Order: sequence, then C-alpha cells, then structure tokens
Amino acid sequence: MSVSAVAAAPTVRAPLPVLGRDVAVPLVTGGEVTYAALDYAASAPALQRVWDDVAAYAPYYGSVHRGAGYLSQLSTDLFENARRTVAEFLDCRSGDQVVFTRSTTDSLNLLAAALPEGCEVFVFETEHHASLLPWRGVRVTYLDAPGSPAQAVATLERALADRDPYGPALVCVTGASNVTGELWPVRELAAAAHAHGARIVLDAAQLAPHRAVSVRDLDVDWVAFSGHKLYAPFGSGVLAGRADWLRVAEPYLAGGGASRKVARRADGGVDVEWHDGVARHEAGSPNVIGAHAVASACTALAEAGFDALAAREDALVSAVREGLADVAEVRFLSLFGDDAPRVGVLSFVVDGWNSSHFSAALSAEYGIGVRDGLFCAHPLVRRLVGSEAGGQGECGAPDAGSLNAIRVSFGAGTPDEHVERFVRAVRELVRDGARWTYRTVEGRCVPDTSARA
Amino acid sequence: MSVSAVAAAPTVRAPLPVLGRDVAVPLVTGGEVTYAALDYAASAPALQRVWDDVAAYAPYYGSVHRGAGYLSQLSTDLFENARRTVAEFLDCRSGDQVVFTRSTTDSLNLLAAALPEGCEVFVFETEHHASLLPWRGVRVTYLDAPGSPAQAVATLERALADRDPYGPALVCVTGASNVTGELWPVRELAAAAHAHGARIVLDAAQLAPHRAVSVRDLDVDWVAFSGHKLYAPFGSGVLAGRADWLRVAEPYLAGGGASRKVARRADGGVDVEWHDGVARHEAGSPNVIGAHAVASACTALAEAGFDALAAREDALVSAVREGLADVAEVRFLSLFGDDAPRVGVLSFVVDGWNSSHFSAALSAEYGIGVRDGLFCAHPLVRRLVGSEAGGQGECGAPDAGSLNAIRVSFGAGTPDEHVERFVRAVRELVRDGARWTYRTVEGRCVPDTSARA
Repeated sequence: MSVSAVAAAPTVRAPLPVLGRDVAVPLVTGGEVTYAALDYAASAPALQRVWDDVAAYAPYYGSVHRGAGYLSQLSTDLFENARRTVAEFLDCRSGDQVVFTRSTTDSLNLLAAALPEGCEVFVFETEHHASLLPWRGVRVTYLDAPGSPAQAVATLERALADRDPYGPALVCVTGASNVTGELWPVRELAAAAHAHGARIVLDAAQLAPHRAVSVRDLDVDWVAFSGHKLYAPFGSGVLAGRADWLRVAEPYLAGGGASRKVARRADGGVDVEWHDGVARHEAGSPNVIGAHAVASACTALAEAGFDALAAREDALVSAVREGLADVAEVRFLSLFGDDAPRVGVLSFVVDGWNSSHFSAALSAEYGIGVRDGLFCAHPLVRRLVGSEAGGQGECGAPDAGSLNAIRVSFGAGTPDEHVERFVRAVRELVRDGARWTYRTVEGRCVPDTSARA
Repeated sequence: MSVSAVAAAPTVRAPLPVLGRDVAVPLVTGGEVTYAALDYAASAPALQRVWDDVAAYAPYYGSVHRGAGYLSQLSTDLFENARRTVAEFLDCRSGDQVVFTRSTTDSLNLLAAALPEGCEVFVFETEHHASLLPWRGVRVTYLDAPGSPAQAVATLERALADRDPYGPALVCVTGASNVTGELWPVRELAAAAHAHGARIVLDAAQLAPHRAVSVRDLDVDWVAFSGHKLYAPFGSGVLAGRADWLRVAEPYLAGGGASRKVARRADGGVDVEWHDGVARHEAGSPNVIGAHAVASACTALAEAGFDALAAREDALVSAVREGLADVAEVRFLSLFGDDAPRVGVLSFVVDGWNSSHFSAALSAEYGIGVRDGLFCAHPLVRRLVGSEAGGQGECGAPDAGSLNAIRVSFGAGTPDEHVERFVRAVRELVRDGARWTYRTVEGRCVPDTSARA
C-alpha cells in the first residue's frame, strides 16, 4: 500500500498547515531541499493556525488577573477561556481542574509534589524519564516491560494486589510510547488501578497530539501533556484532573498569585493563606501566550477531527513499515509486536550502522530531521536494543557500544512527501552507503567538510 | 517640568516600539482611545523587535539538543546563544550559569530548592511574595521595612551579626520595589552579606527592565528576572549566577534532559545519574521561543542603552510626580522618601476614593490600564497604607476597609502621551468625580452598564 493510494481514501485529509513547511535547508552534497521535520515526538512545529492566533492576540497582551485595564481584562478572559477549551478538549469531568504548567515534565513533577503522605507509586520501566523519575521521596515500584497490552494490565494487577489496600497509591502510565509509538491499554490500566484503590495519571505527551483523549471515558484521574508536542511550542503544558489532592497540597511554587493573604505575625514571622483553586499551583505571572497557543491547538485539532487525523497518520505509519519491509537491515523496535496500533512514532536500528551516523546522513544528504539516542527512555531502549545501548562510538564503526536507536516521528503537519523521502533515503543509505564522509565531534556524527567520500 | 520639556533634552529618546501601541479600546462614555498600558510592573508589552525576532525564528523551530536534523541543530544553537546573550546582558562572571526558568518566581523557587543543608535566609518584609515566600523548610529571618537605604544595610548587618557565622546563609533582596519603584542599595547589601559569610540573590524583576544590572559590579551571587516584565512575554525567566550550589542540589524537576543515564538495578530499582551543568535544572523540552525572546529583549535594551532609557524614564516619573504635586488628595507610597531614586513604578492612594473604583474609572473613561490591590507585597502595602488594606469594599464607599493602593508603571515603550493622559485623568477624577456609575462585582469595580451617573 503506497502513501498515494492511501491518500486517495475518502477519510484522509491533507496535512494541516504548519510553520516551516517551506523552509529549505542545504544539503552537504550540494543544493537544498525542503526540510522534512520528522522529529515530532520530540517537538512539533507550530500549526499555522496556532501561530495566527498568537499573532492576532500578541498586540492585546496585558497583565492578567488584578490589572484594571481593558487589555488586562481581555487577557484574563483569554487565559481563563484557554482553561475551559483545554477542559473540553480533554472531556474533563465537572470538578476537574486544568492547571497550566510548562510541560508534561512539569505537570508530573507538580503531581509528584502533591502526593498525599505515604502514597505509593507504580510505574513501568518503559516510561519516558518524565514519567519515570519525578516520584522522589516516596516508595516507587518499577514494573517490568510487558510483552503485550494484556500483560501490562496483568503486571499492574499483580503489583497492586500486593500493596496495602488502604493507603494512597498512584499509577503513572503513558498513553503512547515515545519510543515505539505503541498505544497502551489506558482504560484497562485505569480500571485495574481503581479496582485496587489506586489512582492513575496518564502521560499523554505522545497521545494527545494524535488521538482524542477523554478523561471521562478513559476514567483516568489526571492527564498531562505538553504544548510543544501539540503544535503549540510556546512554553505551556497542562495537568488536568481531580482537584482534591491538589487542593490540599503545598503550593507547587511559592509566590504571588498562589497566595491569597500574607501578613507579618506578632513574633516576626509571616503567615500565608494560600489559594485553594488552580491559582494555588500557578504562582507567578502566567504564560498567557503559551496557554492561548495550547487552547488554539486544541481547537484546531478538534475541528480537524481525530478520526481523520488518525486515519491519515495510520497511512503514513503503514507507508514507513511497508516501504521498508523488505530491507532486512532495518529492525523496528516494539514491545507489543510489529502490528500493534501506534501513533506516528517508530524507532529502529540499522544493522551495520551507528545510529548517529545514519541520522546525520539522513539530515545532511536528504534534509530529513530525525533523532537518534535513547529518547529519554533509557531502560526501555536498552531492553529493546541491548544493554550496551547508549555508549559512544566512532561514526563509521557499527560496534555494539554505539548502538543507539533512530526515531522517525510525524503528525498532523506531515506531508506524504516527507515520509516518502524518508523511505527512499533509508533504502538508498542501506543499499549504497553514505555519499559523504562523517566524523565524530563531541560524541555525535557530523559531515566532514574537509573531505568527500 | 513638563514631559515635553524633558523630552527635548538630548539624552532622551523616543519610546521603543512595542506591540499594541496602536490598539484602540472603547470608552464607557463613548468613542474609543488608544490604550495606555501603564501596568508594566505587572507585565510589559513585547518590544516590536522581540516579536519580529520570534516571528523570524518560528518557522525554523525544531526540537533541541538530541535532534539530528538541520533545524534541531539551528534551534539548539539559538537556545545556547540565548544563554550567552543573557550572560553578557547581566555582565556575569566566568563560571556563572544562566538557567532558563519560567519566571522570577520560578527562579527563586529553584534557588530555594538548591539551598545547602542548614541554610538560613534573610529577607525584608517589603519584598514581593515571589521573594518573600519561596524559602520553605528553612529558617527565615524577616527583616522590618527600613526607612532609608542606609537603614536597610544597617538592619541587614545587625541580623547577620547574630547568626552562626560558619553556616550557609542567603540574603534575598529586590533591586527595585514593585510597589514604590524605589531602588535598593544592592551593592551595599551584597557587601554586608559577604562580610558576614552570607550569599545574596537579587530579585531584578523590576530592575532589569529599567537599569543596567551587572552581576560583577553589584557583586551579587545570583540574579533572577522575568521575560514578561522585560518586554518578552513568552514564558521564560532567568536565574543566573554561581554554579556551586546548583551543581550539587537535587535537580529542580526530575525528567528527561536533566538525567544523563538511567538504568534499572538488579534489585528492581532505578539508578539515575544527573547532569551537573545547567541541564540539571532544565528538565523537559526547553522553551526555546521564550529563551530567544528574552535574549532578543536583552540585545534590544543593551543597544538602546540604559543611560538613555533611564533618563527618559526619570523624566516620565518626574512628570507624574510634578503633575500631581498640587493634588492634595493623592498620596504616593514611599519607604525612602518622595525624592528617592526609582524606576517607572509609583503607587498611591487617593483620599476619598476606593482604589478599585478609581482604577476602574481610569480604564473605562480614559483607556488607561493601571493596577489596584496589594501588588503581591501585602506586608509592605499594609505598612504604607494601613493595616486594614486588602479588605473588600463597595465601589463608591471610601472606607478604610477598601483602601488598597493604585499603581502606575511604565517603561521603554511608554509614549509621553500615556503619562500626560494619566496625570490629566487623575486630576479630573479627583476634581470632578467619575462621569459614570460603577458597581461591585466579585470584589471589583466595573462600570454599571445599566445606568449613567
């Protein structure tokens, strides 16, 4: 099935316009080419619509909350409306809160700081470090990588069955892996968590840009995502969900905005009365432009429709997999099997190639931006690639010590041509080798501009 | 001395172009007028130059750090260059670190989380809550409001003399008050701190947009400021200064970017090796656009020259003070005396007026955006206005319980006309009263659109 054939299907739309779609980059082999941004899983370009909304608002920017001026009131309304838009986007329950943070990492660190006394945390070793590491100062159970969605649920069930059923507990799980792109059985994991009296937070950093996320239907207690992966790279993220733990937790940041009343005491100390709504965890002037950008992206994606977006993305995923199916040197990474449902994120290794070398050649000779490394998910990539993954190696030498992985990822703004070019480039590199010479600088491969292959 | 007379002086320039300079807002009394943004101390409009730089970069946005693509490398360079630009702007010492945060509040909370064991903190009660409150879980000495810069130094000296001279200590002080605009004797306070073996962090949120800040000359250990008060409202702030405490502190956020190596242990746990440079405290994808915007503002302000900017701002401050000198009902708030040097930030109360009412009339009848309240500096405003400040009152009733303050603030983008209009508006409101009727909604005054005065 070629991309073109799929593109003709009635459910499949054209890509959504994004910034940078016409940016040309130089090739080391001469000439230039339109940049193919295929690192969406790290950070996605801004939707043109998001940019237009930011640009339209920017002249009206004003201090929010206590400002008495017209633009302050307009900006305050815009900021609070952004919160409502995000709540609708996530299909939040009545009573859920939307806290604006800076990123998924920040959202999960906020939740970690709000855990009740004695809370136990359960997290799979396969998570991104943002989900794996924030749980400091509490008891954390790391769960082994499952071989299937059903095994993930069974593993969690087993771990939760062993815990004290009366204490608080939190499960943290990704909706879609940032390494394999595979979808996790969130609804089933949430049911398992709740059956054992635990709560669950969904790391939707990789899911929300690609699939509809309903807090209500998935029955998760919280969801976290980042604007910059959701086509809104303006420094804002979101933590949305239940208010109770957040309401009584120490404020995430101490400062203005979070404090309702501050007064010196007779003994010289200071008494602080904190807000108990979302303001409690949003000290400091909010990033209004960032929140507006996130809301704009939510609106744009909802209007485009996730069914259509997912259908188009599925076609791109198939184009990659089918286009490289007969290239024996390319091995895709997977926990749940090659045909497991996934978002537009695929990682692979190429036999005989150092991943940094391969990625550098994709960039320098084809204008394609992918990523190589361990993708901030070291235990998972080591499990899939080998325990030696993560070492440094020389460009040309495909020794095990340098065997990182390569990740290609895309989304709503990706034209077919980018994926077609990627497939062609991988085939050519494997068949013919790089046309240029590369050398290792600070552990990374770069074109050697002093010599030609 | 009129603004116009001052504007003719050779050292005084035109305002720097900012976004929103042509935005018209409706007046409740009919018609519309160009919005006068006089709430810079809360948040300043973006410099046109900053916006242009953001707009020029936005199509080239790419994932930073590990991305192999051309735009990833360009974005990484841009991000790290932003760090260097900020270091130059602050005249940092060799070895100082520039950490990108989200705001001054965030910067100070980061530093608070990095305090060494047993660190004592000394802070004046007159600080903004962002400087007053982040010091949780440590011993904090709150210092009484001083009546002069010399008294501030003496007060600090006295407090530090009483402390254990061998333990770590930190002084946190503002460079310019967010309430009175008054400049604090930072260099002298730094000398006092160091003489007693303490360190000092400068809250430059209100200072950096208005005066040159040299970490080296002031001899402060750290400085914190916000992009959104520095004409770059894109969600980024800065903590710059000594690396030692930060290098050994627990990472501020736990997640990707901050972690160098993560591995499962044989016992099922997880070992983490953290970065020890700036990355340690910048987990998650950085806000590249925000950092770029801050750097752009730093460059623009440095090029305009702080001598010229400060001279023009001094003229605007004089225009306000002299324009209202004969209005007996207007009382400016000050710790150090009416003629103390200050940035473009002035707070005042108007006898016979509820501050929210007065501010609402400035907005609705003159298109002027100021702020009323306690400005996230409750102890200071209560000291200057009265212990009852902060209560709620009805719009028309100037009872003590509703006596908040009003703050007018401006900066590099403020045209003379805004300040002239403000002076005229205050005089007219005091003399003639409001032309419209206002009512109290959720504790704030708003024009009553059902009735005319």
